Amino acid sequence: MLVVMQSHATEEQVRAVCECIESLGLRAHPIPGVARTAIGITGNRGEVDTGALESMPGVAECIPVSKPYKLVSREAKQENTVVRIPTPCGEVTLGDRAVAVIAGPCAVETREQAFAIAERVKAAGARLFRGGAYKPRTSPYSFQGLREAGLKILAEVRDTFGLGIVTEAIDNESLDLVENYADVIQIGARNMQNFSLLKRAGRALKPVLLKRGMSATLDEFLMAAEYVLSEGNYQVILCERGVRTFADHTRNTLDLSVIPAAQRLSHLPIVVDPSHGTGRRNKVLPLSRAAVAVGADGILVEVHNDPARALSDGPQSILPEEFEQLVRETGAIAAVLGRTLN
Amino acid sequence: MLVVMQSHATEEQVRAVCECIESLGLRAHPIPGVARTAIGITGNRGEVDTGALESMPGVAECIPVSKPYKLVSREAKQENTVVRIPTPCGEVTLGDRAVAVIAGPCAVETREQAFAIAERVKAAGARLFRGGAYKPRTSPYSFQGLREAGLKILAEVRDTFGLGIVTEAIDNESLDLVENYADVIQIGARNMQNFSLLKRAGRALKPVLLKRGMSATLDEFLMAAEYVLSEGNYQVILCERGVRTFADHTRNTLDLSVIPAAQRLSHLPIVVDPSHGTGRRNKVLPLSRAAVAVGADGILVEVHNDPARALSDGPQSILPEEFEQLVRETGAIAAVLGRTLN
Amino acid sequence: MLVVMQSHATEEQVRAVCECIESLGLRAHPIPGVARTAIGITGNRGEVDTGALESMPGVAECIPVSKPYKLVSREAKQENTVVRIPTPCGEVTLGDRAVAVIAGPCAVETREQAFAIAERVKAAGARLFRGGAYKPRTSPYSFQGLREAGLKILAEVRDTFGLGIVTEAIDNESLDLVENYADVIQIGARNMQNFSLLKRAGRALKPVLLKRGMSATLDEFLMAAEYVLSEGNYQVILCERGVRTFADHTRNTLDLSVIPAAQRLSHLPIVVDPSHGTGRRNKVLPLSRAAVAVGADGILVEVHNDPARALSDGPQSILPEEFEQLVRETGAIAAVLGRTLN
Amino acid sequence: MLVVMQSHATEEQVRAVCECIESLGLRAHPIPGVARTAIGITGNRGEVDTGALESMPGVAECIPVSKPYKLVSREAKQENTVVRIPTPCGEVTLGDRAVAVIAGPCAVETREQAFAIAERVKAAGARLFRGGAYKPRTSPYSFQGLREAGLKILAEVRDTFGLGIVTEAIDNESLDLVENYADVIQIGARNMQNFSLLKRAGRALKPVLLKRGMSATLDEFLMAAEYVLSEGNYQVILCERGVRTFADHTRNTLDLSVIPAAQRLSHLPIVVDPSHGTGRRNKVLPLSRAAVAVGADGILVEVHNDPARALSDGPQSILPEEFEQLVRETGAIAAVLGRTLN
Repeated sequence: MLVVMQSHATEEQVRAVCECIESLGLRAHPIPGVARTAIGITGNRGEVDTGALESMPGVAECIPVSKPYKLVSREAKQENTVVRIPTPCGEVTLGDRAVAVIAGPCAVETREQAFAIAERVKAAGARLFRGGAYKPRTSPYSFQGLREAGLKILAEVRDTFGLGIVTEAIDNESLDLVENYADVIQIGARNMQNFSLLKRAGRALKPVLLKRGMSATLDEFLMAAEYVLSEGNYQVILCERGVRTFADHTRNTLDLSVIPAAQRLSHLPIVVDPSHGTGRRNKVLPLSRAAVAVGADGILVEVHNDPARALSDGPQSILPEEFEQLVRETGAIAAVLGRTLN
Repeated sequence: MLVVMQSHATEEQVRAVCECIESLGLRAHPIPGVARTAIGITGNRGEVDTGALESMPGVAECIPVSKPYKLVSREAKQENTVVRIPTPCGEVTLGDRAVAVIAGPCAVETREQAFAIAERVKAAGARLFRGGAYKPRTSPYSFQGLREAGLKILAEVRDTFGLGIVTEAIDNESLDLVENYADVIQIGARNMQNFSLLKRAGRALKPVLLKRGMSATLDEFLMAAEYVLSEGNYQVILCERGVRTFADHTRNTLDLSVIPAAQRLSHLPIVVDPSHGTGRRNKVLPLSRAAVAVGADGILVEVHNDPARALSDGPQSILPEEFEQLVRETGAIAAVLGRTLN
Repeated sequence: MLVVMQSHATEEQVRAVCECIESLGLRAHPIPGVARTAIGITGNRGEVDTGALESMPGVAECIPVSKPYKLVSREAKQENTVVRIPTPCGEVTLGDRAVAVIAGPCAVETREQAFAIAERVKAAGARLFRGGAYKPRTSPYSFQGLREAGLKILAEVRDTFGLGIVTEAIDNESLDLVENYADVIQIGARNMQNFSLLKRAGRALKPVLLKRGMSATLDEFLMAAEYVLSEGNYQVILCERGVRTFADHTRNTLDLSVIPAAQRLSHLPIVVDPSHGTGRRNKVLPLSRAAVAVGADGILVEVHNDPARALSDGPQSILPEEFEQLVRETGAIAAVLGRTLN
Repeated sequence: MLVVMQSHATEEQVRAVCECIESLGLRAHPIPGVARTAIGITGNRGEVDTGALESMPGVAECIPVSKPYKLVSREAKQENTVVRIPTPCGEVTLGDRAVAVIAGPCAVETREQAFAIAERVKAAGARLFRGGAYKPRTSPYSFQGLREAGLKILAEVRDTFGLGIVTEAIDNESLDLVENYADVIQIGARNMQNFSLLKRAGRALKPVLLKRGMSATLDEFLMAAEYVLSEGNYQVILCERGVRTFADHTRNTLDLSVIPAAQRLSHLPIVVDPSHGTGRRNKVLPLSRAAVAVGADGILVEVHNDPARALSDGPQSILPEEFEQLVRETGAIAAVLGRTLN
């Protein structure tokens, strides 16, 4: 924490601020400058509450310095975390040179639909299958997912096609079931700061794919991951899925610069969801290429064999043949970076 | 839903789109214009999925028309909903001519702290007391609230001072307890789209104060309220608490225009939280005045007797004497609008 | 400027950063903390370029400390600037206890229209008249204003009704004319960082009303004003007119918290434009009340006698009778704050 | 334009709205739906002003339908515009299969600096050189560029190295000079809606590189280009350079999804500026790769031989050796898309 004094602050005002800091059990380090004095604060373990300081005479503003995350930080662990997902066809890894492709429908609708899509994405090269059994929907009147019946279909997909399963939990009850049936527990953007759910995910024995909230800063995103790690689960995959801005040509604004920024600050792998990130079918292929080019550790893509009749998020699902092109092109780009798909 | 064709779309393309619409069981209404044709769609009950239509040849874009909310809408119910909160000193109402003042600390820290603040805000005229027993905090290492012990202190405040109690539930477990101890169940901004929690709140027998999410549009905010109403609980109070923007002079950007906008679309009462909405103590008084002036049905204000040592959100809590000034000034402004405080 | 080192930075790395700082002619002040070392920099006159420092081994990040504005700052001048506008009916002031009401059509369309509106707003109590002769329009095919013919009509309004004239200049050429005909030179939001125009306005002999850019931070807004003052024109009125956010219930999001924030940092008066700030006629009255309640030094309101046929911005203009109600209600609220209209 | 009636609107209310529409010289097309009636409007040439309609009894809202741009639209011209820039070493094209690399310092500082950088970027493969002689700076006290002396240095760079020159004009005066000395006239983000400057650029005989404003929607961006085309200059290159959002890990949020979105709506070429788009040196390489992968027609990169001492924007300039790596990697990615650099 740094307290910046006004340019006309008196020596007594500086002294009073220093005394207030010391009275809170901290150390004050005044730094006199040409135009004004700043006072560094050390000795604090968590955040310093700045209310009292900010309203003292002569204080211009208080600037926080230390980042609050610990376990997720690259300062705490310098080498990349590699998340390992055992599947019937062998281990899939995220965080090393491989680039994971996670594909499937937005929602599991029927056994036939899930199987038809799984067959196509498997043939195209995917080893992880995504599909929602619990769907957080803006409207209470929209399709909310097949729930446990959907999880059972996913388990069948796993057994039949050998694909690892990634699916979302929306509360503690569904997380118990998802942990049982799936290989990766997804926490959605709307629950990124559902701290109760994050703590429960931190006690799960399966990896967690944590989506960035719609208006989460990178610090908040990493702090949400910190909740999971702080409960003992270190297998966390971050996921950028677009943020909310004024721009209206896509449903969200995909923030690809967060990939190198997160990789600089944290050792956790990070993937990109260009389907939710754009909300438009015709943007998924170019943004998938860009995601791999920027250095993401994987992509999460919605594929549907009949998007016009999809029960949710049809407008952003691509067709299986488009997915095949996507795998080809992203694979070639991964090679430019010395990486391979999956 | 309206499908807008490109200016050079052919008659066959228009016909093909109409046929696709009819094949989905809907009705198509082509409207030929000077520059292009648009096609209205009627007969849909929920949202029409636009994926198929948007990618048909000749289609420029698809524009949704109907708002998806029903029960919260002023079209469904023209007169204002008045939420009635029974307290030991008589009923407090929101949604009529009275303007409610809800005040108290961010978090309940000790019995002494809660009582000291309750005494002051009661004396200044508040009849509803706010204070968190469960605190959703960005960091897992920050103070998370006294939990049930905090609820018990709040119950004592209720009995001793006759104040109605407003406090937050963060998951289904805490909601069970909050429903038991408090008079109003608060759902925080981070949980605005925790649909599992909203449904549980919809089955509660106490009024719900629902905070707007940090990047929620008004439609999404009303749809979150719709979740609560759709489960049978019609006693919902909306709360604007600032949204996330690029602006950095306050912690959030308080969006006061949402008050008249919500009142136009919905019959539910709406209050403003200038403490979280600005995050700065010295902004709470002017924005409280503005909130009452714009027509809010109440304000939610953090008051602390020792903000420098507050365990959470000290920088935005005002002192009891500042609260007294706030009550005086907002009361005078309420009178200009023909309303009275509480 | 503060350089924050990584927690595992070595002593040599800290020393190397200090040497780099000193080699730039500045002074380094290392502050060793529990978790990490921070290094304060003093001796810089402008901004320190952080490129070299940020990429040195062991550096976590660089945080700017000093605000770059000088003349607009309350540190430079503690008492409020009072802008004085001479009009045929006497001086109008902004920045003291009076609250100015500036009203008129978005654009001057005809002499008849301008006179009809001027008569009504004058009767309702306004002493300053607004109306655009040069209109910056998103589309090149929209009405762009009557240009000098419009300025002549405004001069007639001035002479006939005794109202002071506020009107926009959009480039150096129009500024020459505006300076000649009007009492206050308006710089629009889209030109807030047209530095060439700001410098020209700084050499004008009339007061300048500077609108905040659609995505300007408060610092950038004040720096734009600094351009005007730095050329010698100290008569600057700031104007909040809404910022761009994701929210879609209004055309812009009116940021009323910027009023007390600007007043804390700067001595310049600040007014609010609720017409552009909301873009909706039915929001102008409540947000005008809120603007006065939050402490603005004035409001800028679009009034039209026939909004349905207005050549620009009809949807946000209020009718003369609505304006009369607005003057009544904002006057009563000003009185609560010990102020009077005009 | 579509007028959506409230669900309980009466037949008379619908009729009254239709009559109002017809009285404006337009045609009304009522579309009765299950829940409500919508009324299509045709016959309008520009925008319909919705003020009158929105406030009529029974009206829920008005939704604009037609896009306002004409000349920039792919509906007006289906094939890509190829901008042709003659340079001493032959023509450089934008908008065909080639991907242009435009590189150089943020600002021209000295002849030595410009020559040193030009030599390196030329050797690495660039054929277009960027460098500012007129610098729009947030602070009036920052380095504002060498002005005409800078343009003369750029002309020498052109002659000596055979590079085409891209440089910014900030007002009509500087545009006259830039048009004289340079090959491409850049209009900066802060001037994207400086309509006076856009019109002047539309009368220039050199191509224009138009940067997206910090908070411009795609529609506004295209309308700004429409200003240039409407004056007769069809050689316009669009440039995405990051937009302003709440995210704070980069200086701006680079919106790569705007590339395919612009290419779908418009025939104009579009390039990406990852230097301003991120503001961080260590993000330029990954985002350059992503820009080419998403399908941009070129990239605009700041390169400096001594970023620590750069007079502007040092933190975002890359070193010549980093630029060589950038050319290699983006070239390989371009090949995946069947394109080549330059």
